[in-house]
Amino acid sequence: MGIKSRNITAVPHRVKVQERWRVNNHKGGVLWFTGLSGSGKTTLAFELEKILFSEGYHAYVLDGDNIRQGLSSDLGFNHEDRTENIRRIGEVAALFTGAGTIVLSAFISPYRSDRSLARKAVGESFHEIYLSANLGICEARDTKGLYKKAHNGEIPNFTGVSAPYECPTSPDLTIDTENLSIEDSTTFLMHYIKRVFKM
Amino acid sequence: MGIKSRNITAVPHRVKVQERWRVNNHKGGVLWFTGLSGSGKTTLAFELEKILFSEGYHAYVLDGDNIRQGLSSDLGFNHEDRTENIRRIGEVAALFTGAGTIVLSAFISPYRSDRSLARKAVGESFHEIYLSANLGICEARDTKGLYKKAHNGEIPNFTGVSAPYECPTSPDLTIDTENLSIEDSTTFLMHYIKRVFKM
Repeated sequence: MGIKSRNITAVPHRVKVQERWRVNNHKGGVLWFTGLSGSGKTTLAFELEKILFSEGYHAYVLDGDNIRQGLSSDLGFNHEDRTENIRRIGEVAALFTGAGTIVLSAFISPYRSDRSLARKAVGESFHEIYLSANLGICEARDTKGLYKKAHNGEIPNFTGVSAPYECPTSPDLTIDTENLSIEDSTTFLMHYIKRVFKM
Repeated sequence: MGIKSRNITAVPHRVKVQERWRVNNHKGGVLWFTGLSGSGKTTLAFELEKILFSEGYHAYVLDGDNIRQGLSSDLGFNHEDRTENIRRIGEVAALFTGAGTIVLSAFISPYRSDRSLARKAVGESFHEIYLSANLGICEARDTKGLYKKAHNGEIPNFTGVSAPYECPTSPDLTIDTENLSIEDSTTFLMHYIKRVFKM
């Protein structure tokens, strides 16, 4: 996409992100969780945020709760709006990365091309984490009662029911949340985080 | 504005912002600089970011450079686009505030109603800082050569030349950047910041 703004003078941030890493004692970046509703994105993101915080990391969750009611409150769930929603989240994740934070983003983000754009906005510190759980399992869990509503036609464009989900073709990490417990998934992810955001 | 998303379950952040303040040893919030092009917004924001960082604060600048080429790259400078730009920045500032950061936002933000909306998004930790310098002074400085271009008709909708600027009616703080040096303005603002973001 082109940039509509011209006459913007690029003023570099006076504080380099590497200096922030040094003070924080870890690098910043994005763990981009993707998967069906019910695959565990929000649960794992909050669990990790809590653990990371207690261990002195700077981490922050972006999820439907703090994005859909604010930054993306003007967007719905058709393809175009979903694409714009994920574009904005990618850009916000890039800003937090610039501030040295580890972002845990918990959105279905069903389209490959949207996730690619988010990766492009953030750069090399973007990690696509695929939470793999099949539709049957997610429907059976139905933690928020959304699948039932979707099948009753109360929610249009619901991923897995009336809208597509495009699995990652080469995610940085896959977590089999169909078979792993929350605790095991968290332990596995903490190992990954400590490795990739290590100074 | 209404919220288009329904069926979003509100999941509270597991890490409370007050816990982040305690670890950071300061509160989070927003210094929202407003004023004409050339009034010193970006200069002061980066100067303060540098000082705050060196004193152990968590601070981050939002400015045209990191917003207009990313999150708001689809927006121009007509009234409607400016309003949407400021709305998005207000929401991003609210997210950073939720993460415990002190945001220094450096945008002309010429419309009172837009600044009001940003305040509403952030809440009580929003501080409107008016950088007061009259148009003649700003035109004379013309640090980026933009006023000259605007007068030549090369930039449409340029605040102060071909688009309005609505002065704050009750800013939280006014800095007379027409008469104060950068150093004095910075000193003054550091006192303010230490007071309002104190634990």
